Amino acid sequence: MLAEVLSIGNEVISGRILDTNAHWLSQRLEELGYRVRFHAAVGDDLDDLVEAFRRAAGRVDLVVASGGLGPTEDDLTRDALAAAFGLPLEINTEALDQIRALFARRQRAMPPRNELQARFPRGARAVRNPNGTAPGIELDVLRPGLSPLPNEGGSDALSGLPADRERCRIICLPGVPAEIVEMWNDSVARRLMEHNASGLRIVHKQIKCFGAGESQIEAMLPEGFVRQTDPRVGINASATTIIFRISAQAPTEEECRAKIAPAVETLYARLGELVFGEDDDELETVVCRLLAERRQTVGVIDCGSGGLVGERLAAVAGAAGGFRGSCAPATADALAHIAECFGLAANLTGTIASRGAAGSSDSPGPSAVAAALAETARLLWNSDWGLAVSPLPPEGPSASPPRPFAVAAADENGVKVKELPYAGHPAWLRAWISKQTLNTLRLALLRR
Amino acid sequence: MLAEVLSIGNEVISGRILDTNAHWLSQRLEELGYRVRFHAAVGDDLDDLVEAFRRAAGRVDLVVASGGLGPTEDDLTRDALAAAFGLPLEINTEALDQIRALFARRQRAMPPRNELQARFPRGARAVRNPNGTAPGIELDVLRPGLSPLPNEGGSDALSGLPADRERCRIICLPGVPAEIVEMWNDSVARRLMEHNASGLRIVHKQIKCFGAGESQIEAMLPEGFVRQTDPRVGINASATTIIFRISAQAPTEEECRAKIAPAVETLYARLGELVFGEDDDELETVVCRLLAERRQTVGVIDCGSGGLVGERLAAVAGAAGGFRGSCAPATADALAHIAECFGLAANLTGTIASRGAAGSSDSPGPSAVAAALAETARLLWNSDWGLAVSPLPPEGPSASPPRPFAVAAADENGVKVKELPYAGHPAWLRAWISKQTLNTLRLALLRR
Repeated sequence: MLAEVLSIGNEVISGRILDTNAHWLSQRLEELGYRVRFHAAVGDDLDDLVEAFRRAAGRVDLVVASGGLGPTEDDLTRDALAAAFGLPLEINTEALDQIRALFARRQRAMPPRNELQARFPRGARAVRNPNGTAPGIELDVLRPGLSPLPNEGGSDALSGLPADRERCRIICLPGVPAEIVEMWNDSVARRLMEHNASGLRIVHKQIKCFGAGESQIEAMLPEGFVRQTDPRVGINASATTIIFRISAQAPTEEECRAKIAPAVETLYARLGELVFGEDDDELETVVCRLLAERRQTVGVIDCGSGGLVGERLAAVAGAAGGFRGSCAPATADALAHIAECFGLAANLTGTIASRGAAGSSDSPGPSAVAAALAETARLLWNSDWGLAVSPLPPEGPSASPPRPFAVAAADENGVKVKELPYAGHPAWLRAWISKQTLNTLRLALLRR
Repeated sequence: MLAEVLSIGNEVISGRILDTNAHWLSQRLEELGYRVRFHAAVGDDLDDLVEAFRRAAGRVDLVVASGGLGPTEDDLTRDALAAAFGLPLEINTEALDQIRALFARRQRAMPPRNELQARFPRGARAVRNPNGTAPGIELDVLRPGLSPLPNEGGSDALSGLPADRERCRIICLPGVPAEIVEMWNDSVARRLMEHNASGLRIVHKQIKCFGAGESQIEAMLPEGFVRQTDPRVGINASATTIIFRISAQAPTEEECRAKIAPAVETLYARLGELVFGEDDDELETVVCRLLAERRQTVGVIDCGSGGLVGERLAAVAGAAGGFRGSCAPATADALAHIAECFGLAANLTGTIASRGAAGSSDSPGPSAVAAALAETARLLWNSDWGLAVSPLPPEGPSASPPRPFAVAAADENGVKVKELPYAGHPAWLRAWISKQTLNTLRLALLRR
């Protein structure tokens, strides 16, 4: 079935805000098996809105709109729906009850204006908004001539209507992203599953990888694995993390999971340690989980990502137990001063010298420096693990040929170092360095 | 004049990528005085594209499209333009020369496929793409019947055409955001200024504020100041920074600046130190600039933003000279260990105790702690300035009533402390803490 995502509001078309709703809704709709064919955005203008609704209803099976449901004069979604499909506006008691209940829960009197938010086109159903004053609107319209459907008498009558080529369903949600997410999880996803798949369940799973590029990872998989349709498998990259999204549709949740399982097994089998987690996992959450399981701690000396490694660890809820802190000197001079203050200078210099000597070069390479910094980080933070990023090469990421830097993780049993070229897309470079560092600790933890 | 922004590509409508191009282009178009009335996005489907171009050309004066200009089979923008407006595709020699020149500059042979990228609808003009293989396409079409304009014989003929209600201009750019920015600055903005304003110049200025909310700041300004139209003044908030955008249109740049100047003066006069910078300034760039002017350095101890204060300072190009580094202990225990290692514990405890005693409470408050940390940061980093965030209250940002934390900046002349409630929107909380910290240093620097 085809879908269109419609964004409503002057702030969207004028560029005052970035329209993340259309992006998020498209992802969710595709997961539910809809093919999103159009995005459209219009301002708070009645004529434009009416035309946008009529055009959308004429060319897809489902329209999901966001915005324009507030109580003020520039909120025109309700009026536009009524005008587009020739329906009178009337108080929807279900919607009014929801609005009143929300104000009652907040122990506030309901301003008379908010009653406007319950004026729905006749035949529309209310979509519960758990934490906002604007209930959503669900309306089925006939397609070709765009004449209204008879009033089916409430939300229960709805589930009996099969989706067909003659009808278009329109769902209008508020513009606030957080409310859209809540409403989606509360009831919209379920309603749409029924609409699209006659009661079929849909289950999704994400498998997340780090350490290789999208095409390199795809090449490790069986021919046709990505973009298979049952289960559906998609792959995309987000700031150097590679994410597989696997979705299955079946009568029961168990059958969905049974369809997903072989694809997940294939990913783990073929990609091995490139897979670092599932669903909401990030590298830092995985690292903190591994540390918590082992009742261990980590401290950081970061001369490369400007402190981003520590910031990611600090952001994990409950990380405090495992994460001791981060020290991010901005210059070689500042690093030397810190080491001196701590009485660590001799240790650091000695380690660098001995490691440098083991290599073939005269001056210590980034690997020797990173290793010594990781060992120093254990002392500095009094932690089980020391994690470090060596200073970045002075030439910058676009130097040719790229010069290396290194990341290292040390515990009492030794140190694991990874040398990397300082090169890459400027927008992702710091994120990539911080992820390489966290991933080095993850792999070291897995092997202890 | 009215404009529509059209995004082309399956990756946009399916939600695989977030469409930042439409957002960026809308902002630029509004700055040039266009009113953006619609956004639309379609996939790589010829029929959908043809319809989207025809519809857009029928309802606005300018269409700016992005995507679909590559050399592969799913790049259909050229074919769609030709089909939508009944124009034959033919090699545009200007475009072909640009493509050949790019490959020559890269010392690579041009693959035969890339010649496709010079197949333009008859009458179209090439838009230079300084660093990409896909030249943009500029095409003027007649509106009502959508019949093609006569071939005007090249780009020079263009500037003579006045914009009118009978014509729509279509500009097609590649999908790569960086190339769009380069092409915009290279020639598109200039072409559109001519198109929209018969040679009027447009000048923009941004004034950036921190330290108060959007409505609070607006209330400090004269009635009607925001949303005035000559010059145009807009206000918006971006992660707790408040940004005024002032745009003027006039025959010369001097006249534009003359129109803008009084509005800028009003902002500085009414908002005082709430204004921290202009245009591309961020708090960290301003702080680094002030430090550089004074040949001073700063070091950080950050128990509140997880290291974000230091990360922002480290991200400023050329900051290395003024920024010494950041130490971000995640726990009180780790902070104590660090202080002990450095032989700073006595100093820290003493300072906290003396400051705590000066206050009315028994245990030292966050202000005493922040002040002591800022003084300790100077020693730790051997820097002129010490900047610190006290540990956050254990209750979390949604506690009622909110408990305070504090930020402080110290130099040899003393310490400036600011106590703040630990409360606010979770999405911006860390950013807000880091900005409060940088702003405290900014204000302290201004007073030395």
